[in-house]
Amino acid sequence: MKKVAVIGIGQTKFGEHWDKSLRDLSTEAGALAVHDANLNVKDIQAMYIGNMSAGRFVSQEHLSSLAADQSGLLPIPSTRCEAACASSALAFREAYLSILSGQYDIVVAAGAEKMTDIKGETAAAALMGAADQEWESAIGLTFVGLYALLTRAHMQKYGTTRDQLSLVSINNHRNGALNEKAQFPYEITKEQVLKSPMIADPLRLLDCSPITDGASAVILASEEAAKRFEKPVWIAGSGQASDALALHDRSSLTELNATKVAAKMAYEQAGLRPENIDFAEVHDCFSINEILAIEDLGFCEKGSGGKFVEDDKIARNGEKPINPTGGLKSIGHPVGATGVRQIADVVRQLRGDYGKLQVNKSDIGLALNIGGSGATAAVHILRRNL
Amino acid sequence: MKKVAVIGIGQTKFGEHWDKSLRDLSTEAGALAVHDANLNVKDIQAMYIGNMSAGRFVSQEHLSSLAADQSGLLPIPSTRCEAACASSALAFREAYLSILSGQYDIVVAAGAEKMTDIKGETAAAALMGAADQEWESAIGLTFVGLYALLTRAHMQKYGTTRDQLSLVSINNHRNGALNEKAQFPYEITKEQVLKSPMIADPLRLLDCSPITDGASAVILASEEAAKRFEKPVWIAGSGQASDALALHDRSSLTELNATKVAAKMAYEQAGLRPENIDFAEVHDCFSINEILAIEDLGFCEKGSGGKFVEDDKIARNGEKPINPTGGLKSIGHPVGATGVRQIADVVRQLRGDYGKLQVNKSDIGLALNIGGSGATAAVHILRRNL
Repeated sequence: MKKVAVIGIGQTKFGEHWDKSLRDLSTEAGALAVHDANLNVKDIQAMYIGNMSAGRFVSQEHLSSLAADQSGLLPIPSTRCEAACASSALAFREAYLSILSGQYDIVVAAGAEKMTDIKGETAAAALMGAADQEWESAIGLTFVGLYALLTRAHMQKYGTTRDQLSLVSINNHRNGALNEKAQFPYEITKEQVLKSPMIADPLRLLDCSPITDGASAVILASEEAAKRFEKPVWIAGSGQASDALALHDRSSLTELNATKVAAKMAYEQAGLRPENIDFAEVHDCFSINEILAIEDLGFCEKGSGGKFVEDDKIARNGEKPINPTGGLKSIGHPVGATGVRQIADVVRQLRGDYGKLQVNKSDIGLALNIGGSGATAAVHILRRNL
Repeated sequence: MKKVAVIGIGQTKFGEHWDKSLRDLSTEAGALAVHDANLNVKDIQAMYIGNMSAGRFVSQEHLSSLAADQSGLLPIPSTRCEAACASSALAFREAYLSILSGQYDIVVAAGAEKMTDIKGETAAAALMGAADQEWESAIGLTFVGLYALLTRAHMQKYGTTRDQLSLVSINNHRNGALNEKAQFPYEITKEQVLKSPMIADPLRLLDCSPITDGASAVILASEEAAKRFEKPVWIAGSGQASDALALHDRSSLTELNATKVAAKMAYEQAGLRPENIDFAEVHDCFSINEILAIEDLGFCEKGSGGKFVEDDKIARNGEKPINPTGGLKSIGHPVGATGVRQIADVVRQLRGDYGKLQVNKSDIGLALNIGGSGATAAVHILRRNL
């Protein structure tokens, strides 16, 4: 199979950008990636952009052309990909496949979301668009409510504890405190988690990733084209899978089957096993999801994810660093931007120049981006050398 | 380059489906395509689905997994593509590239939109999401208003007449009257067009494609996989391009540059010229757009599209049949479903079994799907034999 590299990465600061619009954020992330790659923008042949719900957040569909235009990329093909919070990992995968197809050599994959400008409804209502409208929204479930159900099931079946959930958020904030792009760059304590408001029992505010504005972009290149650039990092495996939107249609509430299937695809393509992964950026939209990810990616036995966290194996220089840059919890979660942000962070770790955030061992990294309550999962494995 | 075929097609009836939801429509179209291909659904390896604005129309994002689930396709990768009204042509192109990439052999490309269930705002407001929110919506422009501006510019520069616009709609209804899937399967007269209500001067109601519910699906297969199926029709060329969302940023108001660029890509890949195209399905969301399409696809000189229509070259068995199955005007325009519907109609013509709708010469057909007021265009050329 052809080799494809990531040759440039960019990310805006994540946070509440009252002075920047969706187009500003998209353009800024793209420009940062172009600058990072030291690329002539005219060499970019196609764009894929992940966005979950700009139609509801800022009344703007058709972000594909808007972003291409604002970035000076006209008239290249530009396509928006959407699968809720997994939107930009899918944009990345499509960019990857488009290069494998032989149609392009240099492609930008981006993600953007502007969540704080919403009018006429709440961001929580818009986010519920990721779940099943007819079966879940109609009965009053909220998005955090869905994950609360998954949390309860996991606690009941495997004895996962309140403290273990708290430790997920604490670890992410410990890392994110050093991340200059993070929305909430400070540490939190167990007491703060326990005193934070209950959102959907047992999930408290500090179990939840925030509402965020932000954008991210990476530039992909074919092996031939990548030779001209300084810092290629290679795509070793890509996997994507789907599950039922509605929880009641799933075979289990204590695992995300889409993660397992997508991970299997990516591991097989890469010729790797979970133990070969040096570190991972995973989708901690709610604390339980990081525990599910650790298990479903095969980093530990099913049911022992809480213990894995408790033993601090996930610490930035622990046995298996998880979210060494702060995760969705601390960095923020502009839903459509997160997948590419994760990949950009993996790339930077693999380059070995992430400063205070650098993990010790960084030859092989993995990114897991999840859509909705697990109905979409995308897993990418990247390597310093392929 | 590898060869890719379309081996199955499906389309729901287009219209106001008060008794069917978005998921029902998506599933029905997919099932029809599977039945048409005589395929085991387990052989489908990935799904791409075009949808413009289900978030606003029915509060449902994440249609990718929903449609895969409802169609019994779990856990395959499923990705929603969006570029306003060009969403499903882009889904088709991504499906095509994904097979070229070597990752899959059999992929479904679908499109769906449920427009009549909208709550809390009008469909017209949601459709305006295809245009530039900050520069066009904010000053009160409507979607038909944008096309009215393009119409006025074309009339002023090239002398295109009111009658020529009417003849576009009349031809489409003449064809659509025979199309059992059409929303408005009846003929209309020049007098009816002229007496229909003014929507945005000079565009009247009968210049406008309707608000529609519907879905479409096609199944693509690699050359190797296509051998097992009875009726392969081959993809000869695929092109996609972008332009500025906002009209004021365009170089011209009398052509759609994205169409020209996308057509050039598709013609070059196919090794064909406009004169080689036997018939075309083009994007007549408003009557002017069919005239622009005829010109920008190179079927006649720029500015003479109105005359081309007046001379009835576009008739189903004229010199260059345009929208021989009824176009968006008569068939209906469920925005995210139109691109794949066009391709399905081209495929059926190329198979030569379209009954009353069959064109005389059908070796090579073209489909043009446009997003917004022309900020995205996708052109596909298909052939009976490649």
